[in-house]
Amino acid sequence: MDTFSVKAYGTGAADKPLEAMEIKRRELQPKDVAFEVLYCGICHSDLHQIKNDFGGTMWPIVPGHEIVGRVTQVGAEVTKFKVGDLAAVGCIVDSCGECQHCEHSLEMFCENGVTFSFNSPDTYMEGDHTYGGFSKTYVCEDKYVLKMPAFEDLASSAPLLCAGITVYSPLRYWRAGPDKKVGVLGIGGLGHLAIKIAKAMGAEVTVFTRTPAKAEDAKRLGADKAVLSTDDEQMKAAMGSQDIIIDTVSAKHDVNQYLGMLKVDGSLVLVGLPPENLEVGAFNIVMGRKSFSGSNIGGIAETQEMLDFCFEHNIVAESEIINIQDVNEAFERLEKGDVKYRFVIDMASLN
Amino acid sequence: MDTFSVKAYGTGAADKPLEAMEIKRRELQPKDVAFEVLYCGICHSDLHQIKNDFGGTMWPIVPGHEIVGRVTQVGAEVTKFKVGDLAAVGCIVDSCGECQHCEHSLEMFCENGVTFSFNSPDTYMEGDHTYGGFSKTYVCEDKYVLKMPAFEDLASSAPLLCAGITVYSPLRYWRAGPDKKVGVLGIGGLGHLAIKIAKAMGAEVTVFTRTPAKAEDAKRLGADKAVLSTDDEQMKAAMGSQDIIIDTVSAKHDVNQYLGMLKVDGSLVLVGLPPENLEVGAFNIVMGRKSFSGSNIGGIAETQEMLDFCFEHNIVAESEIINIQDVNEAFERLEKGDVKYRFVIDMASLN
Repeated sequence: MDTFSVKAYGTGAADKPLEAMEIKRRELQPKDVAFEVLYCGICHSDLHQIKNDFGGTMWPIVPGHEIVGRVTQVGAEVTKFKVGDLAAVGCIVDSCGECQHCEHSLEMFCENGVTFSFNSPDTYMEGDHTYGGFSKTYVCEDKYVLKMPAFEDLASSAPLLCAGITVYSPLRYWRAGPDKKVGVLGIGGLGHLAIKIAKAMGAEVTVFTRTPAKAEDAKRLGADKAVLSTDDEQMKAAMGSQDIIIDTVSAKHDVNQYLGMLKVDGSLVLVGLPPENLEVGAFNIVMGRKSFSGSNIGGIAETQEMLDFCFEHNIVAESEIINIQDVNEAFERLEKGDVKYRFVIDMASLN
Repeated sequence: MDTFSVKAYGTGAADKPLEAMEIKRRELQPKDVAFEVLYCGICHSDLHQIKNDFGGTMWPIVPGHEIVGRVTQVGAEVTKFKVGDLAAVGCIVDSCGECQHCEHSLEMFCENGVTFSFNSPDTYMEGDHTYGGFSKTYVCEDKYVLKMPAFEDLASSAPLLCAGITVYSPLRYWRAGPDKKVGVLGIGGLGHLAIKIAKAMGAEVTVFTRTPAKAEDAKRLGADKAVLSTDDEQMKAAMGSQDIIIDTVSAKHDVNQYLGMLKVDGSLVLVGLPPENLEVGAFNIVMGRKSFSGSNIGGIAETQEMLDFCFEHNIVAESEIINIQDVNEAFERLEKGDVKYRFVIDMASLN
C-alpha cells in the first residue's frame, strides 16, 4: 500500500520521553478522509499506553485519540466531507461493520475486534499498527470520522472525543434527565464534563469529593450540590439520594460507600479502570435492587450525537492549551493530577 | 391488645435446638385473616436468623416464612378471603403503605421499615416481635396475605413464597423471555426454581455448576444446557453467552468469572447474601457495559403474580416433606447442602 510521511510525536520505549518522529500514513483510499490535526487532547489512557501499564503496547507509540482537525483531502467515494470541513476522530477508527454490535452502532464492542486510533493492529497496513493524533495529519475511513461542529473554543472541544463520550454514553443509557438525580464521583477530565453534560440533560447534579476546593469548583461548573466525602454527616445525609452515579475514579476506592448513596434501582456506573479489583458487599446491591455497572466510551453514532448536544449546550472541556514540545511535562503533571481539567495540544506547534 | 395462645416450634438461644413452645397471636382486627398453617418451607435465612448470623435476632425465635394454610377466621372488614380458602404468607407481613416504594408495590424496600413474618418488631403488639410459620396459626392483615392457588402438591408450593419470588422478581425485572438466555448459578432451593421459572418464561436456560450430578439433575428440571465450571474448555465456550445470570450462591465466589459469561449489556444478579465482600474487576464490567446487580425477594403484588404464574405452569419446588419433630436434623442437613431441593414441614405433625 502506498504511504506518505507525516510528522508526529512519540516514543520507542516506556522509559523514554516523547520526541519528534516521522510516521507513515496510507495514501487515501476511496472512502478515506485526510485531515490536518489542529488540536489533540491528552487523556490518562494515553499515559497508560505509553507506560505500557496494560501490557501490549506496540513501539513506537504515537498517542492521542481526541483529535480535531480540518479536512485536507477526500477519497473518490467520500460525500460526507469536503476539503476545508472541520472533522474529528475519537477512539475508534475501524471495526468489522457486520457483527451484532457494529449493527447496533456499538462499535467499541465489535466482536471481530475494534481498531483504536492508536496502538491497534492496522487493518490497512498489514504488520503495522495505528498511530494517534500527536501528528500533523490523520487518515481515516469517513464512517469513523465525526462531523465537528464549529465550537467557538475549538481547542477545548477536543476532549469531548474521549472524555465527553465516556460520560455522555452512560448518562444516556441510564437515562439521565429532568426527573433524575445524578452523582459524579471524581472531578477530573471525565468528571468535570459529566457535571456539565448531566446538568444540560436536566438532571440535578451532586458531586462527591474529598477536596473542598473541588467542591467549590464543581458548583462553578454547574453542580447543584457538593458532598464532602470526608464529612460523615454530609455523607449520611446523602444516603439513598441518587439515581445514577458516574464513577470516574481510576484508582482503588470504596464502592460500597457509594452504592449506599443510590436510591432503590439505582446504578453506580464505573467509567474509570482501577487496576485492582473493587469490593462489593452483597447487602449493598441486594437491598434496593442496585447495580454496580460499567461503561466504555460509546459508538460512532452516539459520539456524533454527543458532539451535537455539546455544541447546542455550549459545552467544552476546561482546558490548558500547550505546545507539543511541552508534552512530556504535561504527562508528568497529569500523573500527579495537576491539571484543570484537560491538556490540549495546539498542533500548530509541531513543525 | 387481646391475644390468644398458639402452638409453635422455636428456640430461646442460638446454641439450643428448636422445641415446642407456646406463642401469642393477636385477636383478629377488622382487616385481619387467621389461617391454620398446613405447610411451611425451610429457607437458609431461617437458619441464619436462628444462629444470629446477621446479629439482631430477637428471642425466642419462631422461624418460617414460606407459609401455606387454610383460612379459619376473617375480620369484619375482610372481603378478599372467606373461611376455608387457601392462603399464604411469605416474607412480608406489614409496611407503611404510604412511602414511594410501598406505593409502587415494592414493600420490601419500605422507607419506614418493612415488617417480616418473623423476627421483626411487631407493629401491633408493642414491645413484642413477629413469630413465623413454624406454628399452628398465623394472623396477618389481608393485604399481605396471598391468595393461594389450588396446587396439586400444596406442600411443595410453600417454597415459592420465598425461594420462588426471590428468583421470579429479578427474572421479570431483567426481562427474561423467549429472546433471552438465562444462566443459573448454584442449584439449590433458589437455583432449581430459577431453572423452572426461567424456562416457563420461554428463556433458554444454562446452569453453571461444579458437580456433574447437579448438571444432570438441572437438565431433568428443564435446563437446556449445563456448563461444568471446573472444565476450562466448557467455561471458555460459554463466554459472552448469557443475557442474565441469576446468582444464588451464598458463599464467597468468583464473580469475575461469571461476568465473563455475560453478553454485552448483560447483568449478573445476586440473590444470595455471601457474608464477605465480592471482588469485581473494572474491565469485567466496563468492557461490555455489564452490571453486577442485586435483587431481594419481591413485593406483594409480584408475589401474587408469581404464584399464579407457577400454578399456570405447574411449577412447585422439589421438596422433602418432614415432620416438625425432625426440624433440627433438617437444619443440620440444610447446613451441609444435603437436600434436594427444599425441606417443607407438614404442620399437621405439630400437636
